Amino acid sequence: MSITIEDAAAWLRENDNYIILTHKAPDGDTLGSSHALCRALQSIGKRARIVTECGLPRKFLYLEQTVSEQSFDAEHIIAVDIADESLLPKNAEQYRGRVELCIDHHESNSCYAAACCIERNAAACAEVVFKIITALGAELDRQTASCLFTGLTTDTGCFRYSNVTAQTMNTAARLVELGCDSYKINKLMFETNSKQRIAIEQMALSTIEYHDGGRIAVMLVTLDMLEKSGADDSELEGLSAVPRTIEGVAVGITIRQKPEGILKISVRSDETLCSANRLCSLFGGGGHAAAGGCVIKDMTVDEAKARLVAAAEDILNENKRG
Amino acid sequence: MSITIEDAAAWLRENDNYIILTHKAPDGDTLGSSHALCRALQSIGKRARIVTECGLPRKFLYLEQTVSEQSFDAEHIIAVDIADESLLPKNAEQYRGRVELCIDHHESNSCYAAACCIERNAAACAEVVFKIITALGAELDRQTASCLFTGLTTDTGCFRYSNVTAQTMNTAARLVELGCDSYKINKLMFETNSKQRIAIEQMALSTIEYHDGGRIAVMLVTLDMLEKSGADDSELEGLSAVPRTIEGVAVGITIRQKPEGILKISVRSDETLCSANRLCSLFGGGGHAAAGGCVIKDMTVDEAKARLVAAAEDILNENKRG
Repeated sequence: MSITIEDAAAWLRENDNYIILTHKAPDGDTLGSSHALCRALQSIGKRARIVTECGLPRKFLYLEQTVSEQSFDAEHIIAVDIADESLLPKNAEQYRGRVELCIDHHESNSCYAAACCIERNAAACAEVVFKIITALGAELDRQTASCLFTGLTTDTGCFRYSNVTAQTMNTAARLVELGCDSYKINKLMFETNSKQRIAIEQMALSTIEYHDGGRIAVMLVTLDMLEKSGADDSELEGLSAVPRTIEGVAVGITIRQKPEGILKISVRSDETLCSANRLCSLFGGGGHAAAGGCVIKDMTVDEAKARLVAAAEDILNENKRG
Repeated sequence: MSITIEDAAAWLRENDNYIILTHKAPDGDTLGSSHALCRALQSIGKRARIVTECGLPRKFLYLEQTVSEQSFDAEHIIAVDIADESLLPKNAEQYRGRVELCIDHHESNSCYAAACCIERNAAACAEVVFKIITALGAELDRQTASCLFTGLTTDTGCFRYSNVTAQTMNTAARLVELGCDSYKINKLMFETNSKQRIAIEQMALSTIEYHDGGRIAVMLVTLDMLEKSGADDSELEGLSAVPRTIEGVAVGITIRQKPEGILKISVRSDETLCSANRLCSLFGGGGHAAAGGCVIKDMTVDEAKARLVAAAEDILNENKRG
């Protein structure tokens, strides 16, 4: 059942002893939104605690101090920023089928909870939680504002993605007014690199090759580079977006070598010139018009590169003629 | 004389035939703010035109279509985002001593104009121009909003710098509400790279060396690298900030080789551990606590590196003991 912001606030006010679930491989939005909600509930005298997959990832550690550790018998289960029960982490499996309130913003939310409070056009779940906390009449202090800002800025790539609306910016303005440390949070989220990240980025950039008169750019991330740099998967975030940012490039392709001969392909494109979804579907993958992916097996990196470039060229030429 | 937003708006309403000046080496704020003001003035029936150093830099070309070309005898001179007359471009030298209204946000503004409308705590001049246009009662349409957003986002590094206030975010929210294309503008400003930039970035990253147990990182940009990559100065923007973004690094030093044996040094630091200003002043330069620069002559790159690293180590150790 879909419920309104006010319904959600009323239900939270009436009940107590809340378990707040976050999704697996937690990001800034599920963590920031859940901590803001937990803090707000605790501030009005409710008992609440958060379940995360494992400890907080290092860059989100500052969220920990925003909530009190409380031990109590779980009574009511809330899911925050979780589009589907399949996204529950292992340690939350026990709550499957028992979620009473789901607060979310994903287009794809499967409405698995008894009550769903979902705003599908919100850029971040934090926008929805901001409204619920306001309706709840709970205090929105500096720390709660910082939790919400974390969700807002990470789910919008620091307000750069196309999902940003006036509501996003108005919420951000209100959070800055409330004293959230937007500068520190943005610096931590977007301007902090590991040595390994710098190393793998340098190696990946050095592999960029241009094809079709500069309309196609291909970048490699090989197992050898991962080993030499010491980087892990989490340090590759955002890297595959780079080839497409280069002037004149309509199709940016990143080929990532995985163990056992598997190649993970990531495509970003100017959707008016080449659909990334169409290109990737030729290799058994898919995606959106501007971003897609596929997995290639039983080909060397060079073979895959040649096949991908040829296919991209065909689509570009077809659209040119059309 | 300092004047208020309302005074500035009243003066603009009373007069006509405006020349709007921008500063030399124009950036997004001087260009965005001047175009917004020009468009607003034209929309209420005034004649106005903008003087820029040369043609608009390529990434700002979209601003051009927001104003009509008007030819008329210059009557009143306005300076936008220009802190001092020494920052006037050559083709605006004739207006020196004749600026009647200066609209600005720089702390350092020298109040050289007959009337100065300055908000020193505004992150961008666009915030001040936004208020003046509002007070003027001129239409704030989608295109004017896009001009102002350009100023706002470029002068805040896409809302990441410490100069961002609630007013900045509220202005941004209003501009998004007015239909400005924040997504496209941010993409163009922050996620567009030239092939040369990618090449020089890769080369520079490959030179990063760590010293003092990883507390100091040094990066080189040599003449050879500039030649091989084909990059020019404008393509180095933001690059010198990279070493300091690396985890554990308290002092990030970039050494840039210039012709005739000159080395341009750029320092970014964790101000609580090492003042960049103090480090640079040891080499005849200066700056702020967190960012500084100096010029070194008559030293090889290796000598300069060794001297800078030793000096940074001294300051770090001193503060550790202190």
